[in-house]
Amino acid sequence: MWQPDRRADIPIYRQIASHMEGRIRGGEFPQGSLLPSERKLADMLRVNRTTVVQAYEELRSMGLVERAVGSGTKVVPAGSGGAISPNWRKYLEAGTFLPNVPAMRRIRSELRTEGAVIDFASGELHPELFPNETIRTLLKEKTFDGHLGYEDPQGFAPLRDSLSRFLRRYLNIEASESSLLLTSGSQQSLFLITQCLLSPGDAVAVEVPSYGRSLSLFESAGLKVIPLRADDQEGVDPDDVAELHRRHRLKMIFTNPNFQNPTGTVLSAERKQRLLDIAAERGIPIVEDDPFSLTAFDGTVPPPLRSMDAGGQVLYVGSLSKIAASGLRIGWLAAPHSIVSKLADARQQMDFGLSAIPQWVAAELLDSPGFGRHLAELRRKLAFKLDSLRAALDYHLPGEVGYRVPEGGLNLWAKWNERPANADRLFEQAIREGVVYVPGSVYGSGPDFFRLCFARPADDRIEEGVAKLAAAYRTASRF
Amino acid sequence: MWQPDRRADIPIYRQIASHMEGRIRGGEFPQGSLLPSERKLADMLRVNRTTVVQAYEELRSMGLVERAVGSGTKVVPAGSGGAISPNWRKYLEAGTFLPNVPAMRRIRSELRTEGAVIDFASGELHPELFPNETIRTLLKEKTFDGHLGYEDPQGFAPLRDSLSRFLRRYLNIEASESSLLLTSGSQQSLFLITQCLLSPGDAVAVEVPSYGRSLSLFESAGLKVIPLRADDQEGVDPDDVAELHRRHRLKMIFTNPNFQNPTGTVLSAERKQRLLDIAAERGIPIVEDDPFSLTAFDGTVPPPLRSMDAGGQVLYVGSLSKIAASGLRIGWLAAPHSIVSKLADARQQMDFGLSAIPQWVAAELLDSPGFGRHLAELRRKLAFKLDSLRAALDYHLPGEVGYRVPEGGLNLWAKWNERPANADRLFEQAIREGVVYVPGSVYGSGPDFFRLCFARPADDRIEEGVAKLAAAYRTASRF
Repeated sequence: MWQPDRRADIPIYRQIASHMEGRIRGGEFPQGSLLPSERKLADMLRVNRTTVVQAYEELRSMGLVERAVGSGTKVVPAGSGGAISPNWRKYLEAGTFLPNVPAMRRIRSELRTEGAVIDFASGELHPELFPNETIRTLLKEKTFDGHLGYEDPQGFAPLRDSLSRFLRRYLNIEASESSLLLTSGSQQSLFLITQCLLSPGDAVAVEVPSYGRSLSLFESAGLKVIPLRADDQEGVDPDDVAELHRRHRLKMIFTNPNFQNPTGTVLSAERKQRLLDIAAERGIPIVEDDPFSLTAFDGTVPPPLRSMDAGGQVLYVGSLSKIAASGLRIGWLAAPHSIVSKLADARQQMDFGLSAIPQWVAAELLDSPGFGRHLAELRRKLAFKLDSLRAALDYHLPGEVGYRVPEGGLNLWAKWNERPANADRLFEQAIREGVVYVPGSVYGSGPDFFRLCFARPADDRIEEGVAKLAAAYRTASRF
Repeated sequence: MWQPDRRADIPIYRQIASHMEGRIRGGEFPQGSLLPSERKLADMLRVNRTTVVQAYEELRSMGLVERAVGSGTKVVPAGSGGAISPNWRKYLEAGTFLPNVPAMRRIRSELRTEGAVIDFASGELHPELFPNETIRTLLKEKTFDGHLGYEDPQGFAPLRDSLSRFLRRYLNIEASESSLLLTSGSQQSLFLITQCLLSPGDAVAVEVPSYGRSLSLFESAGLKVIPLRADDQEGVDPDDVAELHRRHRLKMIFTNPNFQNPTGTVLSAERKQRLLDIAAERGIPIVEDDPFSLTAFDGTVPPPLRSMDAGGQVLYVGSLSKIAASGLRIGWLAAPHSIVSKLADARQQMDFGLSAIPQWVAAELLDSPGFGRHLAELRRKLAFKLDSLRAALDYHLPGEVGYRVPEGGLNLWAKWNERPANADRLFEQAIREGVVYVPGSVYGSGPDFFRLCFARPADDRIEEGVAKLAAAYRTASRF
């Protein structure tokens, strides 16, 4: 009998709904008849009952069935007085947003069940690394006296003031509160930049491999993505920018110079200056995505490009996601006021701005004396997790994996010394073993590369995760 | 001497920056020379010093000047080694987002200074109507034990559960948690729908006059907006929909049937059913924007379209903004799961989801026994403000203004019995007097209509505001 295809991009519940829809319209289930019970169909198709519930809900919302309390799910009279439910398929295929890459969707669906696989894929901190106590205490002890009405389109002014001081103190970046836009994170900053400052067809340089390369947002904005090679030892070569500009007339450069994601490299001071000069000579703005500078394990923070930028060319994108907590959804863009103003106006059209309470929490957090201590503790814990990962790799995969040791950030960029015969099969086998990572192809790299986020698993799961990866490697290597 | 043009659409600080840029490039201020001090230029141009600060910041970020501590603002050597600051003008003109309508920008700039004008324009609650105490107590007494990491793309599951129960209990709407998408408010729901379910060139019916008509988001998505006449006594005529569809092949209908903004009408039960039937016969989905149903002053909540929708055609958009607090940024979309899923995926690309803490607060709020009491109190206070507004209109503008008395919502839709000679001049005169409202043209109506939001001013400012409006009317009528 028919079984859903677990490898296909189409979610299982939707395959089941389509399948049942076909059988209903084909007459197999006449009007008024009952569909198989949820439990029964789940058993037959070897899926979770909740998946069948979702499929039946889909059929109900399409107007094909209704729930009869105590009886089950019943097929409603066809046409119901001539009514046609909207053909949602057409609407689902419309619009300008391209779906996220299949590998990432696969990873996300595996991670939906808490604790099911050991997670080296999500590029974020383990919850024990968040300043949980500080935030809880803050919520309890300080009285939220902020304004719960619509806010300044640029974001909560006291947070922009705190942030301005924070950027100066910790990163040597001068940005007045009027040149700051508070966003819901780096993602929103990048989305606003690509949607509002660029037009379809514009050529933009994007590092490869990079996290940026994995995002659909450049394509969703209709931009022409020009790959800018990011060497896994030294990062981008600014002279490449000059060459690419000659060939493509770049409108913007997207870079992540400090603890680049995924390679972990830090662009040298000389290269940073050369990049600024080359871009300045040609009038090309640079978007600097900087989630990780403050995670420098030894506390020596590499200067952001923006801190070296005298000419106002760098649009600086930062956030609290990797140095505090991603669930706060607090990020920022430092840019000329006119840019900030335009993007704030567009953002108002999208979502009317950020929530008041998290902005208040973030302002308190950045101003608190404990934040410096939190950063020091975070660096220490990240370094420990990296050491655990390396020890586990040495033990379980001796000589199989090569990597450059990062000095900050959350990720290890690794390479199989012997290219796997089939990277997809290895990825699937790892999931079967109970561990997930991100294949290099997601970032625009080759099948011998992969990213392990050492920040995400709990300390006591890192070795177990590597052991499972090793088991998958040995299994997959046999074919 | 040159003075900024306060009527122009271009912000004052930017006019000043352009003006000074011209003078710098023209040689009036050679390299190394100082620009006038901020205070001096502010005096000369009769603007706030902060406006000049912003203008100088703009020049600095363009690489033309630098701040010399203790000296002032100095012109930097031209070209700085051949460097060209990016031409931000090109980038500001790019992108797909259309700016908000000029009248709204004017209103917002007037409102930027707290308390400067009496605000009948902002369509939101006065802060004293928010459940401030409940939220403060909640933050202090309950421990936030939620997850501060990345969340479910559909939003915090416990909030979707609370919301599902809330919708059933208060609005008779059945929506399982899997068919709910939590958004940052109605604005984000509408943005996602227009960007993701429709393609450029698609024809959509939008009520006129309506709040929806005032938004740029339909045009930003490249949609063809087909006006659907909303009568100011009875709302839309569903038979008009059939006619419009015959002529334009409508892809979607956008409606606000309960306490329509701005007219305040409630669509009759018969018209609601007819609208559902006509749309169903043609397979056209309906987007129901429903911010106000629960504000029904006498507590008799008019049924939302969605509660009458058996066929799964209505995409239901709601939020906490008008019944709790807009600063929470919590809204929702109830739709077939496949739609919710696609929109959640697109929203991830835009901003990676909502902040954790406000979602937790909202879940606690909706579940709290006090919320019903809060709604009852809100209705009482809104009714009181409406009564105050009506009494003030009767006293200060007897016989000059006609309106239908709304039974819920935040707004009074008023009409000058004698059309003003010049609606723009009246609007400006009102601002000079110290009161602001929204001209009918913003909603697609004529110059004799205007909207007064009675919910926004404090109780003791309502009469004062109407007195100022009356003064403006008499002044403007003299010409």
